[in-house]
Amino acid sequence: MSMTSKHFINNPTDLVLSALKAVKYTNPSLSVDEANKIVYYPSDSPNNVALVSGGGAGHEPSFTSFVGEGMLRAAVSGTIFASPSVRQINNCISRRVGANAGVLLIVMNYTGDVLHFGLATEKARASGRDVEVVVVGEDVGVGRAKSGKVGRRGMAGTVLVHKICGALAATGASLKDTAALAELVAKNLVTLGSSLEHVHIPGTAKMEGPAMLDATEIEMGMGIHNERGSMRVKGMEIGTLVQAMLRQLLDRRDKDRNYLDVRDGAEWVLMVNNLGGVSPLEMGGITAVVVEKLAEEYSINPERIYSGTFMTSLNGLGFSISLLRIIDTGLGKGKDMLSLLDASHETLGWTPSVRASTWASPAPPASAPIDETEKFPTSHLIMDPNLFKHTLTQGLRALIAAEPFLTRYDTLVGDGDCGTGLKRGAQSLQHFLDTGGVRADPVDTIFRLALLVEDSMDGTSGALVSIYLHALVKALRDSPDSSEVPWGRAALQALTGLGRYTAARPGDRTMMDALVPFLVALGRGEDLKTAAKKAREGAESTRGMRPKLGRTVYIDRVGNVPDPGAIGVAVFAEGMAQAEA
Amino acid sequence: MSMTSKHFINNPTDLVLSALKAVKYTNPSLSVDEANKIVYYPSDSPNNVALVSGGGAGHEPSFTSFVGEGMLRAAVSGTIFASPSVRQINNCISRRVGANAGVLLIVMNYTGDVLHFGLATEKARASGRDVEVVVVGEDVGVGRAKSGKVGRRGMAGTVLVHKICGALAATGASLKDTAALAELVAKNLVTLGSSLEHVHIPGTAKMEGPAMLDATEIEMGMGIHNERGSMRVKGMEIGTLVQAMLRQLLDRRDKDRNYLDVRDGAEWVLMVNNLGGVSPLEMGGITAVVVEKLAEEYSINPERIYSGTFMTSLNGLGFSISLLRIIDTGLGKGKDMLSLLDASHETLGWTPSVRASTWASPAPPASAPIDETEKFPTSHLIMDPNLFKHTLTQGLRALIAAEPFLTRYDTLVGDGDCGTGLKRGAQSLQHFLDTGGVRADPVDTIFRLALLVEDSMDGTSGALVSIYLHALVKALRDSPDSSEVPWGRAALQALTGLGRYTAARPGDRTMMDALVPFLVALGRGEDLKTAAKKAREGAESTRGMRPKLGRTVYIDRVGNVPDPGAIGVAVFAEGMAQAEA
Repeated sequence: MSMTSKHFINNPTDLVLSALKAVKYTNPSLSVDEANKIVYYPSDSPNNVALVSGGGAGHEPSFTSFVGEGMLRAAVSGTIFASPSVRQINNCISRRVGANAGVLLIVMNYTGDVLHFGLATEKARASGRDVEVVVVGEDVGVGRAKSGKVGRRGMAGTVLVHKICGALAATGASLKDTAALAELVAKNLVTLGSSLEHVHIPGTAKMEGPAMLDATEIEMGMGIHNERGSMRVKGMEIGTLVQAMLRQLLDRRDKDRNYLDVRDGAEWVLMVNNLGGVSPLEMGGITAVVVEKLAEEYSINPERIYSGTFMTSLNGLGFSISLLRIIDTGLGKGKDMLSLLDASHETLGWTPSVRASTWASPAPPASAPIDETEKFPTSHLIMDPNLFKHTLTQGLRALIAAEPFLTRYDTLVGDGDCGTGLKRGAQSLQHFLDTGGVRADPVDTIFRLALLVEDSMDGTSGALVSIYLHALVKALRDSPDSSEVPWGRAALQALTGLGRYTAARPGDRTMMDALVPFLVALGRGEDLKTAAKKAREGAESTRGMRPKLGRTVYIDRVGNVPDPGAIGVAVFAEGMAQAEA
Repeated sequence: MSMTSKHFINNPTDLVLSALKAVKYTNPSLSVDEANKIVYYPSDSPNNVALVSGGGAGHEPSFTSFVGEGMLRAAVSGTIFASPSVRQINNCISRRVGANAGVLLIVMNYTGDVLHFGLATEKARASGRDVEVVVVGEDVGVGRAKSGKVGRRGMAGTVLVHKICGALAATGASLKDTAALAELVAKNLVTLGSSLEHVHIPGTAKMEGPAMLDATEIEMGMGIHNERGSMRVKGMEIGTLVQAMLRQLLDRRDKDRNYLDVRDGAEWVLMVNNLGGVSPLEMGGITAVVVEKLAEEYSINPERIYSGTFMTSLNGLGFSISLLRIIDTGLGKGKDMLSLLDASHETLGWTPSVRASTWASPAPPASAPIDETEKFPTSHLIMDPNLFKHTLTQGLRALIAAEPFLTRYDTLVGDGDCGTGLKRGAQSLQHFLDTGGVRADPVDTIFRLALLVEDSMDGTSGALVSIYLHALVKALRDSPDSSEVPWGRAALQALTGLGRYTAARPGDRTMMDALVPFLVALGRGEDLKTAAKKAREGAESTRGMRPKLGRTVYIDRVGNVPDPGAIGVAVFAEGMAQAEA
C-alpha cells in the first residue's frame, strides 16, 4: 500500500519558494524575503514583542500563514522537513522584525530547529538583543521511557501557543509575560497523531519497503515527518481508534505518559488537525467522533472546538488531536486564554473565525422531527401481497447481487456510484417488504415504495425511479372501475410521466435503453420473462453506443462496456421473471 | 498508479452524518437536521432572502460550511457524490428556513441536482412559496461541442456566487435583486480543474483499470466527481500546465470555449481551489505560478486572490482555477462585487479573511537584499589550493554518487532526507570549488565553506557540519606561528566545538560513530587512507546498533541497516583518501 508519489511540482526548491510568494499574494499585509525564506509582517506596532517561529517547510499553513496582525511577526522556512539555517534566523531577527520590545522565538522540539534557533538566539543575545526561546514539545505519541533523552516532539498544538501569545503581544505585553505565557500554554498541551500512510516528499524516490503501512494498518503516534509512532493497529474502527488515542492523551493511569495531571472540572480547548491529505468530509467525521468520545468517556465538553488544517505533513493521510487545558493566565481581563484565542487577527492560517458571543450562545438543536403530513392515496384495486412480495424480492436480490459488476462497469465509464446506489435502494425496499410493508392495495403499497426510493436512493436514478413510481400510482388510480390490477397498461402509461423529467430516450445510452422495451412489452401484455428478455437485449445494445446524456463520462471507453444503469434494469427484470417461472 | 483507497471511516453513511454534526460542533451558530441532512442558520433576520444550496456530499466545505451569517441560510446534503432527495429539499424550504422574503436556491449544473432542486421548487411554488432557482455551470473543461445538450458543470466558482449573494441578502435586498445578481456572477465566471489521479469513494471497491492515470499523467478539465476532462498530458511542468489551463479559461480565439468575452481593462477575482488532497505547500506553489502567468501573459493582476479549499472532490489530488470578471452590479455603494466578497460573515468555509483596507494598501516588497557584513577571518597559514581542491572534490563526488543508497537507508530507518541533504550541500561546495573559491589561506577558505554549508545544507547535519567547520577555523587560527597547516591536530581539536551542540557520542548510532574515529586517526597523524578505514569501520559498526539520539526513527529496522549519516561520513572520507593515493 503505497501513498501516491505524484505531485504537480516535483522540484522541492521551486516548490518552497513559490509557496512563500503565494503567502504574500493571498495576504498582502505581509512581505517576503525570498533569499532568506522569511515571511514577515511589517508591523505598525514595532513596540510590541515580535513573535518569530519557523521550521522545515511541508507543514503549511505552519508557520508562514500564521504571520500577520495578531499572531506571528515573522516565520522562517527551511527546505522540506529541514530546519532553516542559523543565518536565515539571524537575518530574520536582525533585519526583518522591529525588535524594539524584544523577540520571542517559539520553536518545536526537533534537533535541527532547537540547534539552529538556539544558535541564532546566542548570536543575537551576544550582539545585545533581547531574545527569548520557548520550545514546544507536546506530542504524547512517544512515552517517557522512549523519548527520555530527546524529549517530546512539537506538533499542531504549537499553533495554539502562537495564537494565544500573538494576541497577548498585540496588547503591548512585555517579553517576560509573553514568554511566560508561551511556557504555560506549552505545558498544558497534549497532541497525538494517527496516520494511514507515510507521506511522499517531492523530489525523492518513490517509497517502498517495510516503512510503508499495509492496506488496513493505522499508525498511532506517527510524527509530522513520518516519524514512527507508538503502535500499528489493523483495521481499527474510528471510534475505537479515537478511544485509544484519548487514553494516551488523558489517562491518568498511563505512567509512561500522563503528561497532564487531568483534574475533574478542568476546561479545555480541542483542536482536530488535518495532516494534509484527509478529505474535509472525513475530517468532519473524525471531529464528530472525537467530540462525542470526549463527552461520553471524559465528560469533557470543550469551550472551543477547532477542526481544520493547521499543521500538515505535506498531504499526509492522517490527523492529530490536540487538547489544551485552560489555565488562569493571571494577566487580567481580556487576557485569559479563551479571549486571546478569540481575539482578532489578520492571518489566513488561523481559520476558526467563530465569535466569542456565538460560543457563549449556541444555536438551539434542530426543532422537533419534521411532521410527515403526506397524504397516502388509496384505491379500490386488490392484489396478492405475497405474490407481489415474492416477485419484487427476486428482482431486488438479483440487483443487490449485481453490485460488484455494476460498480466495475460504472468505474470504467462513469463516476462509479451506480452499483452502490441501486444496491442501497434495493436493500431499503427489501427491508420494507420484509417488515410487512406490502398491503393488498397496490396504490397504497407503491406510493410507500416511491417515498422510500426518494429517501434511500438519491442521485439521478433515485429521482427518476421515484418519479416513475409516482406516475405508476397515478396510472393505477386512473384505471377502470374494477378490482383487477392493470399492471401492464399502467406500467407503460407511467413511462409518459418519467419522460417529462429526463431528455433521455432509447439510443442515448441510459437506463431507458432497457426500461422502455421492458415496459412496452409489458404494455403489450407479454409475460415478465419475455419482457425481461427485451430489457436484456436493450441493455446489451448499449455496448459501444455513444452516450448523449446520462452517466457515461469516459466516452472512449464504451467499446465493450454496456451502460450500468441499463444493465441494472435488465438484472432486476430477469430477477422478477424468475419468480414468475 | 492508483490513488490510495484507505480511509479512517469506510462507512459512507456514518461518514456523511458525522461530518454534518461536526459542522455544528465547530460553528455553534448553526443547527443540524440530521434526518434530512440539512445544516441551517436559525437567522435572527428572517425577513432577508434565504439562500439555500446543496448537492452531493464529498465536496466539503461546500456547502454545509458556507452556511452562516452573511452567506447561506441552509445547505442540504446528499450522500457522497449524489444529490439530496426532493423530500430533503422540500423539508428544508418548508421547515428550516424562515422564508418570509423568499428563497433563492443556488444549484450546480448536475442532472440530479437540477432535477431534485427543480422538482422541489415546483412543489414549493405550487404551495404558494416565493422560490427562485439559479443554476451555476462555469466549468470550461468541456467545450461547447461536447457539452452542448447537457451544458457546463458547476465547480468551485459557485462559492463566489454564494459569498456575493449571501452578503447582498444580508443587506435586506429583494429576492429579485438577489437572484439577478446570482445570474450575473454565474455568467461572469469560468473555472477549470486539473487532477493527477481519480479519487476513491469510501465504501467502494479499490479503483483500477484504464480510468486511472499513469505515473506522470495529468488530466486537464477533470470534474469534481472524477468526470473526464478534455485531455491527458504526460509529465507536464506546472508552468506549462497553468499556461494551457489559462488558455482554455481566457483565450478569445478558442471558438469552442471563449465563454467570457475578455476585454482589456477588465478587473478580476482569482480563486485557486484545492480539490482536497494537494498539500497546502503545493497549493501555495501552484497559486504563485497562476498569479505570475496571469500577470505575464494576460496582464491580469486580480483585485482579490483566494487560495484554499473551497470545493473538494473528497481528497482529490487536483486543483481548479476560477476567474470572476468584476461587473458593475448596479446596486449602489457597498453592493459592488468586491465589497460583497469582503463583507463580514460567520462561516468556517469562507477563509480568505483579509480586509479590504489591506487589499487597498499592500505591504511593501521586502526591502533591499540583506547586506552581508560578516567579517571574514584570515590567517598566516598557507596551503596548496589545487591539492585542497582536488582532495575535497574526490570526497564530494563520492558523496553525491552515494545519494541513492543513503536515501534508501534513511527511508528504511528515518525520514528519508539524509541522502538529498548531503548531496545538496556537496553540490554547493563543489560549485564553490569549481568557481575559484579556494584561496591559499585555509582559514579564509574554510570559513567560506562553513557559511556555504550553513546556507545550502540545512537540517541537523548542516548545522553540525557548519559548527564543526567554524570550530576548525578557530583551531587553525589558534595554531602555532608557522605557515604549515596543522590539519590533523586542528581537525581533532574542532571536535570539541561540535560536542557542545550535540549530545551524540560514538555508540549512539549517529554520524559521530564514523566522524570521531576518523578525526582521532587524523589527530594521531595517520594518513587519510587509514583514517577513512577507521571511519568505515565506525560506520559499519552502526548496523544493528540501537539508536539513542539522531535520525533513526524505526528502531526495529536497524537490524542490518547502518546509520546513513555515518555512512555518508565514511564515503566522504574514502573519496578524499582516493585523492591522496
